[in-house]
Amino acid sequence: MTEKAGMTIGAFMAEKQVKVGLAGFGTVGCGVAKLILEEADSIAAKTGLRLELACVVDIDIESDRPVKLPDGILTNDINRLLNDDTIQIGVELIGGTGTAKEVQLKMLRAGKDVVTANKALLAVHGNELYEAAHKNNRCIAFEGSCAGGIPIVSAIRTGLTANNITAMYGIVNGTCNYILSEMTSKDEDFSEALAQAQNKGYAEADPALDISGGDSAHKLAILASIAFGYEIALSDIFVEGIESISKNDIRYGGEMGYTLKLLAIGQKDKEGRVSLRIHPSFIAKDSPLARVSGPFNAVSIFGNAVGQVMYYGRGAGMMPTASAVVADIVDVAIGNSATTFRHLHLKPRSEVESLIENIDNCVSRFYIRVLAKDQPGVVASYGKTLGDHQISISGALQHEGSGPDNTVPVVITTHPTQQKNVTAALGELAELDVLSGKPVCIRIVDIPEDNN
Amino acid sequence: MTEKAGMTIGAFMAEKQVKVGLAGFGTVGCGVAKLILEEADSIAAKTGLRLELACVVDIDIESDRPVKLPDGILTNDINRLLNDDTIQIGVELIGGTGTAKEVQLKMLRAGKDVVTANKALLAVHGNELYEAAHKNNRCIAFEGSCAGGIPIVSAIRTGLTANNITAMYGIVNGTCNYILSEMTSKDEDFSEALAQAQNKGYAEADPALDISGGDSAHKLAILASIAFGYEIALSDIFVEGIESISKNDIRYGGEMGYTLKLLAIGQKDKEGRVSLRIHPSFIAKDSPLARVSGPFNAVSIFGNAVGQVMYYGRGAGMMPTASAVVADIVDVAIGNSATTFRHLHLKPRSEVESLIENIDNCVSRFYIRVLAKDQPGVVASYGKTLGDHQISISGALQHEGSGPDNTVPVVITTHPTQQKNVTAALGELAELDVLSGKPVCIRIVDIPEDNN
Repeated sequence: MTEKAGMTIGAFMAEKQVKVGLAGFGTVGCGVAKLILEEADSIAAKTGLRLELACVVDIDIESDRPVKLPDGILTNDINRLLNDDTIQIGVELIGGTGTAKEVQLKMLRAGKDVVTANKALLAVHGNELYEAAHKNNRCIAFEGSCAGGIPIVSAIRTGLTANNITAMYGIVNGTCNYILSEMTSKDEDFSEALAQAQNKGYAEADPALDISGGDSAHKLAILASIAFGYEIALSDIFVEGIESISKNDIRYGGEMGYTLKLLAIGQKDKEGRVSLRIHPSFIAKDSPLARVSGPFNAVSIFGNAVGQVMYYGRGAGMMPTASAVVADIVDVAIGNSATTFRHLHLKPRSEVESLIENIDNCVSRFYIRVLAKDQPGVVASYGKTLGDHQISISGALQHEGSGPDNTVPVVITTHPTQQKNVTAALGELAELDVLSGKPVCIRIVDIPEDNN
Repeated sequence: MTEKAGMTIGAFMAEKQVKVGLAGFGTVGCGVAKLILEEADSIAAKTGLRLELACVVDIDIESDRPVKLPDGILTNDINRLLNDDTIQIGVELIGGTGTAKEVQLKMLRAGKDVVTANKALLAVHGNELYEAAHKNNRCIAFEGSCAGGIPIVSAIRTGLTANNITAMYGIVNGTCNYILSEMTSKDEDFSEALAQAQNKGYAEADPALDISGGDSAHKLAILASIAFGYEIALSDIFVEGIESISKNDIRYGGEMGYTLKLLAIGQKDKEGRVSLRIHPSFIAKDSPLARVSGPFNAVSIFGNAVGQVMYYGRGAGMMPTASAVVADIVDVAIGNSATTFRHLHLKPRSEVESLIENIDNCVSRFYIRVLAKDQPGVVASYGKTLGDHQISISGALQHEGSGPDNTVPVVITTHPTQQKNVTAALGELAELDVLSGKPVCIRIVDIPEDNN
């Protein structure tokens, strides 16, 4: 499939046919089929490659789909794809880490390059699959696995390759971003906003993987590995979801100048130590990421040469993700993916494991909200506990008048301090007689400004 | 230089040496030299390619530069680069359309792939150079030519390849964006803001190419050609600069909900007709592009599958542009640029010339400000002139009290109408006795919302 350099010249090149086999005919699979069927002419005009959908494999070959396939190409027999030597590219859109993994391995062994949007699989078994691809002299292309239609994987791997990437901050889960945007703009509770998101099709019936931060962690594992050049395990990432976010904290944070986002954060210090985290994050209202709302995704990357760059677009959905998958198909077909894949060097996990920062040692600022009983001595004991743990206060907010049960919410923000100090302080605060219930703690992330 | 696919496996590949010759040792040239010298190890670790700066050519080999070259590689003899067969990649950073063109052609004929950031040259002679590259079986890579550190060229050519790109809206000149941002946030006159920009190094001593919109047009010519797949001539682009923008209009527009930006606009309709324009544009304050301020660049692209994507970052400067140039060097060295370049098909100008929309036929909304004499009958004659030309008013703004010479500024915004109607109306308005001086007219650009 790879042409030798220099055999053909620009506009005079004859069309080259590229047969594609698709495994998984769900939402994204339908989008990919639709794009290949509808845009084949335009892609051929632009690139000289004529994509042909040779077969589509799914266990369900009965249900109606939003795309009409040519007769005879839908099948429930994966061997039709695997055994057809004219199919050069296998697209795995089954999802999950079970069957999908077997199918990818079989595709590679059958001599097919693999294109996938399966972030969970790559986050968990990526290194094993990459090795299998190298061994079979094939490649795996995975632009669609992260941030849907935003070509972020190729931006990191090629466009920013001259840079030492020092940090990335991403809004990579559209469901969570939609929910937090609704809670912020409409002062809605989490459960109301989640129901809205489900109504609009932005959240699954079972939203657990999204709202727990698990889906964001999958994407961060993939993006951080290519940005930092490390093999990364999912367990290297600290994950906290948005399930217990209260609209009150979004409002108080807003009054103090912050917007709440679920951020995927990867930071590398000068010694190569890497901090990888998913958690709700208060960020300055006027930072570019704060303005990314609804189901959109955005990733901000800092490189030593380029400064800050940001990529923005739809992070999910049938056609945006299909756009990334088909771009990968073209990239594989012209031979670039194979080269890029071969030149992607990740430091083995054994070498980098000691460079992964434990969350306890991470330095951050914090937003801490307690419910203080309306009685004397509250501030003194609150402040003493923080001071005992070397936590210094940077701002405070207490509205006049007390709330339910004669308590009053008191919010403080801290100067930078290590997580372990805050964890210890929170434990003591929860025990204080003058406070009611457990304190709420949300990290404040100061995204560096690139303004020299 | 191009390897055959499949000869080496992933992390076990030996380093490949890539010799680079640099022509032009100005600002960006220094950045490229610095990156190659300082990041060679890190690039080798990531990609397996060891970049080596073989020679640097400039007519000035005396002046101090912010980078220290190894002894003996700086020369004023271009033949040292051209005649050295071990140099695989020639980097042209001379700038301009004279010597630079000769050098690129000689590099291609000498069997070297070319990397360049020379937007003026590509905008004017791109098609000729591309043809020469094809003929010599070489490639030209030009990521650094547009929007500096933002990998926008590769995003369009690879990441969005499955899309029919219907529109692009770009802030692609940092000088103009800095000036307009200052005028907006500090209520400064154009001349004050320009002086500021020069002070800060964001504007050249001779800012003409930037403020006239010419530089933006160069970039649009390149970006639109790859986005739409058309050969485009600079003369296809309507260009209006920011030299005569008054801070008053920025303020009045602001009161009506708009921010003023110099936009590079490329729009394609269903029949493939393309409108290409550079002009000051009022855009809605809450649109993502409105928030791009200071020296930053951003490009918003609409694709039929992906919806809206936006790329944001530093559009110029030594290191951001060098970042793009070195990324291209790597891309050329691993062989991907050659493939991408070979698969880039542009429809010949003779086929697309008739598809380029004349500015007279472009439909837009408009902001029109007149200075009305404070006397009866003004609104009637003003309104009649517009009505005579089928221009319908969508909004109006007139502050109470009159200004200098007993005149009062009256601003109206229009519904969409063709440019030629407005041009005709403006001519008549300028003749009206009840108005003073020439009316001011600025286009309002409604960037589509991607919110389904």
